[in-house]
Amino acid sequence: MSPTLSDQLQNLGLASMRPSGRQPDQLREIRITRNFTKHAEGSVLVEFGETKVICTASVARGVPRFLRGSGSGWVTAEYGMLPRSTNTRNDREAARGKQTGRTIEIQRLIGRSLRAALDLKKLGENTITIDCDVIQADGGTRTASITGACVALMDAIAFLKKDKHGALKGNPFKYMLGAISVGMYKGEAVLDLDYAEDSSAETDMNVIMTDQGGFIEVQGTAEGAPYTQDELNKMLALADKGIKEIIQLQKVALAS
Amino acid sequence: MSPTLSDQLQNLGLASMRPSGRQPDQLREIRITRNFTKHAEGSVLVEFGETKVICTASVARGVPRFLRGSGSGWVTAEYGMLPRSTNTRNDREAARGKQTGRTIEIQRLIGRSLRAALDLKKLGENTITIDCDVIQADGGTRTASITGACVALMDAIAFLKKDKHGALKGNPFKYMLGAISVGMYKGEAVLDLDYAEDSSAETDMNVIMTDQGGFIEVQGTAEGAPYTQDELNKMLALADKGIKEIIQLQKVALAS
Amino acid sequence: MSPTLSDQLQNLGLASMRPSGRQPDQLREIRITRNFTKHAEGSVLVEFGETKVICTASVARGVPRFLRGSGSGWVTAEYGMLPRSTNTRNDREAARGKQTGRTIEIQRLIGRSLRAALDLKKLGENTITIDCDVIQADGGTRTASITGACVALMDAIAFLKKDKHGALKGNPFKYMLGAISVGMYKGEAVLDLDYAEDSSAETDMNVIMTDQGGFIEVQGTAEGAPYTQDELNKMLALADKGIKEIIQLQKVALAS
Amino acid sequence: MSPTLSDQLQNLGLASMRPSGRQPDQLREIRITRNFTKHAEGSVLVEFGETKVICTASVARGVPRFLRGSGSGWVTAEYGMLPRSTNTRNDREAARGKQTGRTIEIQRLIGRSLRAALDLKKLGENTITIDCDVIQADGGTRTASITGACVALMDAIAFLKKDKHGALKGNPFKYMLGAISVGMYKGEAVLDLDYAEDSSAETDMNVIMTDQGGFIEVQGTAEGAPYTQDELNKMLALADKGIKEIIQLQKVALAS
Amino acid sequence: MSPTLSDQLQNLGLASMRPSGRQPDQLREIRITRNFTKHAEGSVLVEFGETKVICTASVARGVPRFLRGSGSGWVTAEYGMLPRSTNTRNDREAARGKQTGRTIEIQRLIGRSLRAALDLKKLGENTITIDCDVIQADGGTRTASITGACVALMDAIAFLKKDKHGALKGNPFKYMLGAISVGMYKGEAVLDLDYAEDSSAETDMNVIMTDQGGFIEVQGTAEGAPYTQDELNKMLALADKGIKEIIQLQKVALAS
Amino acid sequence: MSPTLSDQLQNLGLASMRPSGRQPDQLREIRITRNFTKHAEGSVLVEFGETKVICTASVARGVPRFLRGSGSGWVTAEYGMLPRSTNTRNDREAARGKQTGRTIEIQRLIGRSLRAALDLKKLGENTITIDCDVIQADGGTRTASITGACVALMDAIAFLKKDKHGALKGNPFKYMLGAISVGMYKGEAVLDLDYAEDSSAETDMNVIMTDQGGFIEVQGTAEGAPYTQDELNKMLALADKGIKEIIQLQKVALAS
Repeated sequence: MSPTLSDQLQNLGLASMRPSGRQPDQLREIRITRNFTKHAEGSVLVEFGETKVICTASVARGVPRFLRGSGSGWVTAEYGMLPRSTNTRNDREAARGKQTGRTIEIQRLIGRSLRAALDLKKLGENTITIDCDVIQADGGTRTASITGACVALMDAIAFLKKDKHGALKGNPFKYMLGAISVGMYKGEAVLDLDYAEDSSAETDMNVIMTDQGGFIEVQGTAEGAPYTQDELNKMLALADKGIKEIIQLQKVALAS
Repeated sequence: MSPTLSDQLQNLGLASMRPSGRQPDQLREIRITRNFTKHAEGSVLVEFGETKVICTASVARGVPRFLRGSGSGWVTAEYGMLPRSTNTRNDREAARGKQTGRTIEIQRLIGRSLRAALDLKKLGENTITIDCDVIQADGGTRTASITGACVALMDAIAFLKKDKHGALKGNPFKYMLGAISVGMYKGEAVLDLDYAEDSSAETDMNVIMTDQGGFIEVQGTAEGAPYTQDELNKMLALADKGIKEIIQLQKVALAS
Repeated sequence: MSPTLSDQLQNLGLASMRPSGRQPDQLREIRITRNFTKHAEGSVLVEFGETKVICTASVARGVPRFLRGSGSGWVTAEYGMLPRSTNTRNDREAARGKQTGRTIEIQRLIGRSLRAALDLKKLGENTITIDCDVIQADGGTRTASITGACVALMDAIAFLKKDKHGALKGNPFKYMLGAISVGMYKGEAVLDLDYAEDSSAETDMNVIMTDQGGFIEVQGTAEGAPYTQDELNKMLALADKGIKEIIQLQKVALAS
Repeated sequence: MSPTLSDQLQNLGLASMRPSGRQPDQLREIRITRNFTKHAEGSVLVEFGETKVICTASVARGVPRFLRGSGSGWVTAEYGMLPRSTNTRNDREAARGKQTGRTIEIQRLIGRSLRAALDLKKLGENTITIDCDVIQADGGTRTASITGACVALMDAIAFLKKDKHGALKGNPFKYMLGAISVGMYKGEAVLDLDYAEDSSAETDMNVIMTDQGGFIEVQGTAEGAPYTQDELNKMLALADKGIKEIIQLQKVALAS
Repeated sequence: MSPTLSDQLQNLGLASMRPSGRQPDQLREIRITRNFTKHAEGSVLVEFGETKVICTASVARGVPRFLRGSGSGWVTAEYGMLPRSTNTRNDREAARGKQTGRTIEIQRLIGRSLRAALDLKKLGENTITIDCDVIQADGGTRTASITGACVALMDAIAFLKKDKHGALKGNPFKYMLGAISVGMYKGEAVLDLDYAEDSSAETDMNVIMTDQGGFIEVQGTAEGAPYTQDELNKMLALADKGIKEIIQLQKVALAS
Repeated sequence: MSPTLSDQLQNLGLASMRPSGRQPDQLREIRITRNFTKHAEGSVLVEFGETKVICTASVARGVPRFLRGSGSGWVTAEYGMLPRSTNTRNDREAARGKQTGRTIEIQRLIGRSLRAALDLKKLGENTITIDCDVIQADGGTRTASITGACVALMDAIAFLKKDKHGALKGNPFKYMLGAISVGMYKGEAVLDLDYAEDSSAETDMNVIMTDQGGFIEVQGTAEGAPYTQDELNKMLALADKGIKEIIQLQKVALAS
């Protein structure tokens, strides 16, 4: 990458150490567009700066075998990247015949988090499948996916509420979820890493929280040096701030 | 589907027999947006009405084994649909571990057609991979894909031209390509079938032609009754008209 | 290939331009042998010159899930080549764990065409699986397959007719089908391309027609230069002539 | 199966206890047809009664990685059954994406046996692939395959001998191989079981021997009761007699 | 391998020709440890010298589809090796997505043998799955597996007997099974080959016998020279002696 | 599960609330056995109570393609469970042809953590593959795996140090790693969850730390209610205590 204006300013001691010029606690511009495609019960385009993910929620009657007759519903997630959503083209997973380990790890995280936000008993015997398809990637695709998926899921549940055969038993949502990445970058805790930061951060942490401030998932990995309890606390504080802002944006989108 | 205004007008003898109200020889609104995503050498969003496909062209040095040392380049295509691009959700091919027969048939058609438009010798030992990913489907995804892919491919070749290591030997494009579906619907030849027509047409035909009016591919399938030579000719005449309009739209997009 | 007698004669202006010495509108010798293997309800060895395909039709009670309870039957096709049916050995698809794109494309074409020839409602809830296995290939395997498969299918339906539990509701056959390849070879339209022609033809077209002269499928691909409407018409006229002869041969075989 | 003449005679104490009416030590009619298909270096149709297998031998320059530079050649085998070679249709392995355990077991046996018959050092760095494709099955396909494959392999090696670039170092054949099944059927040792016998035999044994009378492989499985040393000896004696006759037939075929 | 004491003694004419110093008819030390892991209905660690295999028997209600309603039970086996159970690491089959041919051949042998030892009718509609997992390999893993599996299976059936819902109809065991490898090594018949012998033996034979001395399976393969009837008899005599000792050890283990 | 003694005591207010009767900050008995199998460069049986995992480290010359020529080494991990290591039998992944998402997630975690503990540059162009195979599972298999793998890896590196061709450049170990699970169980933070706790914990957290007290990985998932910052801190404090004890046990094992 050629030096950006921010790099040059920073070298002069005039600006942020972040490639994007953002402050350490500053999110990228986040946009949430509902009803992005026409067929799905919930369809959201979520953008975290240059990261763009289409999140759809599809409702189907019935549940997997292990839940049949339980009266309980199910939520599951699948994740994919368009082959050229990234800087160099990745093999198409459908053509390779296999999802990568990274894909599997991410879709398990998305599904697990969303299920934790719901009372599946109240969903009735419905299955909602969340598809998160990255059309352009610039870091933070998994947290953008969860953020968008939560809105798509709320739209799908609103759809079910209106359906007299939908079999909902009250509002299944226990919490709204927001998700963000934080990390240690050049020795400083930063919020919402983009690709330029992510690829050289010492620590990369994904945090998912409820609108009531509880943790649903914390995943922090030392990419370079191990991190300390103090660094962990700084990152979690940034995540808390960022997720509060994100949940506010979700609420605005849902109100529109 | 509930009856549209056009259905009602038609029943009164006041309007088109097409669900969309279009004339038999009328294309849907076609939009071609270049530079749709930021990483690819060519990136086009193509819309045929409600059908929306992201077509990207990715350039890589080198060619498949069977061409190494030949001085010739290669173009290949892959096609996919987001699971909920359609009315009901389809299994994700990457999760099933297998592309469907339909997907394979379509991506072979796209690749074969584009290669026919090029002089691969002039491409040098470069491989261009075309990805056509359907984000919303309403009939005609394969012909929309080829139409968009042709523009993305031209952008990718323009990129190579500017690259002094690109090894192009002149302009590899022999022709521009446009593609459209035609069919027999309620006994009449119609142009550019949408899903409502496609799913009940007697004949479904995909036609790919050059800007000089030659045929690259004709694929006509009797879905209901066999078709006659006269019907074939009517469909081909519509295709010829539609493709001329499409190529004009491609040229406008490329000029902008 | 070393020059054949026909090549030498042709160079002298004394003979056909075709490697085989055939006239442009001349089929290869076509042989149709019924009851070729003993287990199948319909079993046909079809030979188009040196191209040899075993076509079997296997009857099973029941239909795929999407048809259960509909009263309608189903016909599906699978295609394969023995690894050394070709000039150089191809990988065995069963060992690779995957059918090639070409195989999938061909078996979809065979199945789709045969279904178009039947009134599936009259078949009752039976499934007929057509296997087309190429034991020696010399061009035109897909059209030979359809030609043989039609006869095997008729034998299988005759078997069902005699079976009092067969549940047939009248004769399901709406049409007989014949299939042939045509192409532009050295600037001339030719009928029934063998491998030597197929591998260097400018255009390769497969045509499937009914015994009443309607088109079931037309698939024409420009391998070299685009083809014109005039060339298309010439190729279709040859196909019409060839298919008439083929259907006559099928009738003779069925009468024996 | 309806009672055959032999069943009826046997019930009267007038005839063989075998469904086919054969004597316990009697082979089915065995036919070996060389040059059955035109592309392969060795191509044999082998028939053991109603069991029919196409065995081809394909020569390729080069050897698998683990032998490169060793000067030694390689022989490997693949086995398949046409889906309707059997009484009821089996799934096509290529479509299932997986060879069955039975197929894998058989092709390992064929390859191992043939390699044991050769001095691979004398083969030079060539690989010969044997394909055994069953077009009609009536018991004994694996032993028929080995019998036919041995002849096809000899033809392929004769082809290599004539090729001045073939790199043969003398005659690689140490032995000719014949193979036959024997078994205990209704308490009696019988030679060359057909399907009717095979499916209800107490013991099923496959024996592969050289033209010099040595054992290459003995595989005997108790399907019903365990077998005794005495029964084993009786079966081996029958196998010895049958294989001597088979090797004689191979020699006749090779001489023609 | 550096020369062992036995190699040196043998060179002096003072000792066994076997790498291990064993007599030709001498088994390795065999240990059978029941209840090796805590979850399975039968769990055995079997050791043949340095070869160590965990054999578990898992009971499940119900049978595969082809047996439903028959009143009969089923026994099946799976085999695996830990990747570094061998001298050099093998690919993990689960990661490759495919079991090797060798694995499939072995697990078919194990399952087939165990089924031959049982009256499946008496098992009721239960399925017992035998898992044989090699944690350390030094030759003879398949025969060690069958030896251990037989004990694990007996424990699982004892478990079923105590279960009042187990649906056993008497004792399903018709025989106990022991298994051992024998071979021709340096021209002499030897019992229970370890890896050093197995990898250079002329003949490798696996024998499975009942406690009543009947043969369940004999599989003898010429790895080098063909073997004679006399050699076969010598190997079978050794196998008979070894299996008698093994069955004695199984009985001791079961009594403890 | 029937009530254990500890359950009964606890109901009387006399004892631990943990099913095992352990104190909240008490590890299970941990045993580390080196040189467990004979072939691997490092082989460790690690036991956390009833959880038993074989961890082997296999050294191979060379590195994956993306590191060739870099002078840097590589460490990768694979994880598996014997099918009956668990309470009910799981499908064998090798037979299904696919590793589960859980397996993939765990082996990625193991590999990533171990790489973070090493200076791969100092490893030279060697690849060390860690296999963690669970032979008996009772909760905490992933943290037991990492704990055992660290010891096996140190043994493998000691092996490389003694090998004059090993190409090590100093000691690649930057840290030792210990790993443990912690969780919220019945409202209390507890250390080293066994299966009975794990399956009903509100929060499940895996922590990996260095011998210097830094974090390598923190993964905390709310299974029931979200967790608070205070709960997170309590769990991390327990993890810190447990890992210090584990690293002490590793050192004792390495010294023996």
